[in-house]
Amino acid sequence: MVRLNEHYLKLRAGYLFPEIARRVNAFCETHPGLTSRVIRCGIGDVTEPLPAACIDALHRAVDEMGARETFRGYGPEQGYDFLRAAIAHNDYRSRGIEVADDEVFVSDGSKCDCGNILDIFGHDNRIALMDPVYPVYVDTNVMAGHTGPADETGAYAGLRYLPCTVDNGFVPEIPSEPVDLVYLCYPNNPTGAVASRGQLAAWVAYARAHGAILLYDAAYEAYIQDDAIPRSIYEIPGARECAIEFRSFSKNGGFTGLRCAFTVVPKDLLAAGPDGGQRPIHPLWSRRHTTKFNGVSYPVQRAAEALYTPEGRAQVGGLIDHYMGNAAILRDAAAGAGLEVHGGVHAPYLWLRTPAGLSSWEVFDRMLSSFQVVVTPGSGFGRAGEGFFRLSAFNSRANAEEVARRLPGLTAP
Amino acid sequence: MVRLNEHYLKLRAGYLFPEIARRVNAFCETHPGLTSRVIRCGIGDVTEPLPAACIDALHRAVDEMGARETFRGYGPEQGYDFLRAAIAHNDYRSRGIEVADDEVFVSDGSKCDCGNILDIFGHDNRIALMDPVYPVYVDTNVMAGHTGPADETGAYAGLRYLPCTVDNGFVPEIPSEPVDLVYLCYPNNPTGAVASRGQLAAWVAYARAHGAILLYDAAYEAYIQDDAIPRSIYEIPGARECAIEFRSFSKNGGFTGLRCAFTVVPKDLLAAGPDGGQRPIHPLWSRRHTTKFNGVSYPVQRAAEALYTPEGRAQVGGLIDHYMGNAAILRDAAAGAGLEVHGGVHAPYLWLRTPAGLSSWEVFDRMLSSFQVVVTPGSGFGRAGEGFFRLSAFNSRANAEEVARRLPGLTAP
Repeated sequence: MVRLNEHYLKLRAGYLFPEIARRVNAFCETHPGLTSRVIRCGIGDVTEPLPAACIDALHRAVDEMGARETFRGYGPEQGYDFLRAAIAHNDYRSRGIEVADDEVFVSDGSKCDCGNILDIFGHDNRIALMDPVYPVYVDTNVMAGHTGPADETGAYAGLRYLPCTVDNGFVPEIPSEPVDLVYLCYPNNPTGAVASRGQLAAWVAYARAHGAILLYDAAYEAYIQDDAIPRSIYEIPGARECAIEFRSFSKNGGFTGLRCAFTVVPKDLLAAGPDGGQRPIHPLWSRRHTTKFNGVSYPVQRAAEALYTPEGRAQVGGLIDHYMGNAAILRDAAAGAGLEVHGGVHAPYLWLRTPAGLSSWEVFDRMLSSFQVVVTPGSGFGRAGEGFFRLSAFNSRANAEEVARRLPGLTAP
Repeated sequence: MVRLNEHYLKLRAGYLFPEIARRVNAFCETHPGLTSRVIRCGIGDVTEPLPAACIDALHRAVDEMGARETFRGYGPEQGYDFLRAAIAHNDYRSRGIEVADDEVFVSDGSKCDCGNILDIFGHDNRIALMDPVYPVYVDTNVMAGHTGPADETGAYAGLRYLPCTVDNGFVPEIPSEPVDLVYLCYPNNPTGAVASRGQLAAWVAYARAHGAILLYDAAYEAYIQDDAIPRSIYEIPGARECAIEFRSFSKNGGFTGLRCAFTVVPKDLLAAGPDGGQRPIHPLWSRRHTTKFNGVSYPVQRAAEALYTPEGRAQVGGLIDHYMGNAAILRDAAAGAGLEVHGGVHAPYLWLRTPAGLSSWEVFDRMLSSFQVVVTPGSGFGRAGEGFFRLSAFNSRANAEEVARRLPGLTAP
């Protein structure tokens, strides 16, 4: 009799965003007259069309696929050289950061990469994550059998949660007990916080001292407005020896529906083998990528390449400015309504304290039922997210302005 | 100190196709004058352009992504309803096979699905695979820790290899010992063999009797020329209770560079949980798919949908006829050269016995160095593949005809 992976049975309820979608659908079914008023600030999905440079590149690549002479079948699983080179040059080397082309692995999404990266590590590593946290980091560890069951708050036994609070500026303290794999995400989803050079340097020093690896999710780096804030973990000396970086085209180029991302695995990165000797992990990730993945759609890789052209850069800049304009509008409205506001300055997310002692899901339900605004309940990101809710700036300007008009209702007497 | 997944260290050499690519590149570098003569019949990659119906659908979808009103961000991870419905209707229900839309999971490749499916099963299942076999089935089990080390033939301890030989028509006998997960692939890669209704019914009966699950890879079903041969495992009564089916648009629509496939997980399929009770696995695969994957590129899903239109079907038919025409030319040439030929009738692969007692890699090297034809060494697919080599019919007609002219050299005195 075939046996299932029993660790899946530990997973609590649905993944956060399907649960939000379920509640929104239920509301719309029972309130058809209000459906058209619903504005979604819940899931962090872009709303603006793809940059024109990408559209042009896609059309050209599609035409190539329609002619025998230029048709392309299987590409290199790790990504076409043209894209790996564009990434390594533009995102790293031109900024003084050492990353070789073949340390860049192109994939169809950071969500996939963040989950799949666990494949190359042993099951006995001690896992540390920020709290609140992107749920995928947690759930993929549960699926891999790295945890015990969850308690009533949703925290899993065996994981080391690192609280991110107002007091520590949403950057966790260095743990007092040793850990092996540490998930860090800056600019942060969901809190919108950023980490300073000094804070990241402390984490790199910790990782190097303990032989730990930082899993650094930089999916939102394009939203950083201040050059003093690191966009890449590799801006910190020594990080090549202790960090893997995840990046995505989803939130800069608006590729959430097109699917392209990449992961940097430096060749300097070592982990212990069964004999205790240290070995590079680059060949393991390469083996995983070539064995369990078949590369990103060719036209999509051409679209990603186009983001690095002068036109592409300008158009991405326009998208970032648009969303950060929304964030400023929402920040002003929230502050004006007397809400405690975090984030939204170097990230497209605002992290707001719930008013009047309401729980995260109570605010979610009230925002939906009374104001038809979909937010994300902070507790969906972990125990330390209780008492907060996330507001996404991914929207049209008109919608952001409308949310700004409705938001004060939450604190109105 | 972080520990790596030590099971990766058991993997032998490179994955087969990178190794072939390495040898071809080395030959071309040392024989620049012969490079233009090289014809690739090694990797099973399509060569003809995408159907016009797909090109049109791609252009339309790209334009949608360029306008705010029609832009699409994150899609449903399991695939858009329009594509799941087109698949379930056209590939199954219209042929009298019960498959619900939400039993279809759209993905970016069968290679990914075949590897990822292991995530939802326990580590203590007994794994059986055909020999010769698509290497991904083996390597993903090694990575997951389901095997011991490999012996000198490349066979891993702990896996049950089911020999596929000339004597059994390349359809393995039912095993005498119980197994839990069985990989079957028909039309077969690499042998080009097909399984009859009676042979598949015997496997379904075995699986139902033992609580086993068949992992049925039907990526090449479009090449079946005889309606008496099952295109889907679900043509066999009872298969919904014991089989998962993998399908791809790579080899019918030519999507190897575009990336789209699907997996069918029936809701009737059960596996044992930790308490021994049986539970459906559909929710587990759904949870994996939504947590570790973010859906297939929207334009690509529209292109896949277009394969089911009348024009798309006709164009796919033309592609199949083209490749099967190549297969017939290669079969005639091989037989005329006195080679023992299998496959190539309901599949785009010919499986040829090596002449004069040569090993598989000796034929590979001789075909490359003397005739500049890239073949696939049978031993790369497993121990039982030694003494054979695979010839792919994926090529232009001119190349197939040229290979047919060169092939007799292999057996010339």
